[in-house]
Amino acid sequence: MNSKIRIGIAGYGNLGKGVKLAVEQSPDMELVAVFTRRDPSSIGLDLDKVKVVHVDNAKDYVNDIDVMILCGGSATDLPQQGPYFAGMFNTVDSFDTHARIPEYFNAVNEAALGSGKTSAISIGWDPGLFSLNRVLVDSALPNSHIYTFWGPGVSQGHSDAIRRIDGVKNAVQYTIPVEKALRAIRNGETPELTVRQKHIRDCYVVAEEGADKEEIARQIKNMPNYFADYDTYVTFISEEEFKEKHSRMPHGGFVIGSGMTGEYKQIIEFALKLESNPFFTASVLTAYARAVYRLNKEGQTGAKTVFDIPVGYLSPKTPEELRKEYL
Amino acid sequence: MNSKIRIGIAGYGNLGKGVKLAVEQSPDMELVAVFTRRDPSSIGLDLDKVKVVHVDNAKDYVNDIDVMILCGGSATDLPQQGPYFAGMFNTVDSFDTHARIPEYFNAVNEAALGSGKTSAISIGWDPGLFSLNRVLVDSALPNSHIYTFWGPGVSQGHSDAIRRIDGVKNAVQYTIPVEKALRAIRNGETPELTVRQKHIRDCYVVAEEGADKEEIARQIKNMPNYFADYDTYVTFISEEEFKEKHSRMPHGGFVIGSGMTGEYKQIIEFALKLESNPFFTASVLTAYARAVYRLNKEGQTGAKTVFDIPVGYLSPKTPEELRKEYL
Repeated sequence: MNSKIRIGIAGYGNLGKGVKLAVEQSPDMELVAVFTRRDPSSIGLDLDKVKVVHVDNAKDYVNDIDVMILCGGSATDLPQQGPYFAGMFNTVDSFDTHARIPEYFNAVNEAALGSGKTSAISIGWDPGLFSLNRVLVDSALPNSHIYTFWGPGVSQGHSDAIRRIDGVKNAVQYTIPVEKALRAIRNGETPELTVRQKHIRDCYVVAEEGADKEEIARQIKNMPNYFADYDTYVTFISEEEFKEKHSRMPHGGFVIGSGMTGEYKQIIEFALKLESNPFFTASVLTAYARAVYRLNKEGQTGAKTVFDIPVGYLSPKTPEELRKEYL
Repeated sequence: MNSKIRIGIAGYGNLGKGVKLAVEQSPDMELVAVFTRRDPSSIGLDLDKVKVVHVDNAKDYVNDIDVMILCGGSATDLPQQGPYFAGMFNTVDSFDTHARIPEYFNAVNEAALGSGKTSAISIGWDPGLFSLNRVLVDSALPNSHIYTFWGPGVSQGHSDAIRRIDGVKNAVQYTIPVEKALRAIRNGETPELTVRQKHIRDCYVVAEEGADKEEIARQIKNMPNYFADYDTYVTFISEEEFKEKHSRMPHGGFVIGSGMTGEYKQIIEFALKLESNPFFTASVLTAYARAVYRLNKEGQTGAKTVFDIPVGYLSPKTPEELRKEYL
């Protein structure tokens, strides 16, 4: 490769920070600019070292950026930004609102086909690498049971739900797979599992001074959908302990497929143990930016998912090197 | 899909039997014929139900078979059969002599490009799905440590080596990963491991009557390359116990990648636990036959590896179904 892949980052939260780091660790890439809706001086970057541009001016960079990595959220940012940027740039995003993926795929696909660009959507680990492994299992072991467990890790949605309760100052919720269920599946059993049998919900809460802790715990444990159907544990801690022990964002999980070939049980497991969920997702997005760049050079335009992209395209190594070193 | 993918099987040992089973479990495939060097009536198939043809007559079937799955061995069969069949058919094989893969790839690639066919080489789990995960790890976590452990499972090569010792009637050798090493890596350590620290070699031996068991055990444990560098255990058992407990071919293993994104440790693990090594390999070959068929229809000819083939191509489901059900 003669020249580096020129990367833009749209959105500079935890995910954007992780992409910046991943791009800096990739010798075949360079960061051109970070695009933000905020005041460039407010996002904590050294403006002498990194170009920060208002997102409305991204269109001025169509000739300077090979792949725009979209680091906005799935709820409100990406449904608008995904098709918008795909109309100008090759893109990668981590759209993860499962039920809306078909609709989102179609919107991005149409925009990318129109512009002659290539867009990898719903990249990361779930959706993403977990999805890839579910299809691998289903293809190699037809009619198998496929289980997905998440955690141990922080669920933002469940933590937010606790924080909305009166008297709660701060809170974090860890989703923890039930060991007994994992063990049974690894041993070849294929149980039907209720939500309670799959995951535990472990909550650490900082209460406002004078708040009724019993009432807070009761409200958490009885919250429909989020907690009522699970074994939920609530521990009250001080603000200091919270900051010290619960400010990281670990996550991970397991995809386990259990199937038969003839009379023989075969088990496939893919597991992640991540100290930082957003930084890992960012690293996966960055690898797929490399793939998108190559697919576009080959004329493969439109929206793509992890199912459509050969894994070799993620690597900076040549096909010859990959065959020699990894096959 | 209107018509079924028409499959041929070249070679009918354990792998070929597994492919037959996998094809029968795939509603989008049909088995056209099994090709063998042996007398068709001798291979244990019901000739009223399955067409069995001498391998020399395979060329008469070029219009009847969409993909020929090559089930011969890597030592002597495939180096000759791979390029030979790629000159006539789309093929899939499990060539696994690591050091000769680049040379084999080139030979098959040339033949397939010449015939306008598509050939997936070195398919299975290692090389194959393990290779795929090594590249996934290296791409998502640059500069990570990647460990491969094999087992618990039967090593044919090591079992054969024991059987060549004087006084040994039968033998099986299980390769077993060292739990302590697995645990350390899963906990985030990145040790440099000797062969002894990675795998145990556990041998079950049936001795000839009157043989010197101590001498057999001594010879096994001191055999260079195969056993001398490992913690090797030798247990003598009766022929009955051997047949009852040690006639299956379980295998499996682990690919574990351990890397950093910034200051955060990230661990990716892919694990297989297989009751039948050849039947699982066969099932993977069959899924890749589907991919090869599609790639060829798209005009993507030549030799391919797991790195070049999108995982979605392995599935009988449509891209829309995959996005809806698995993303």
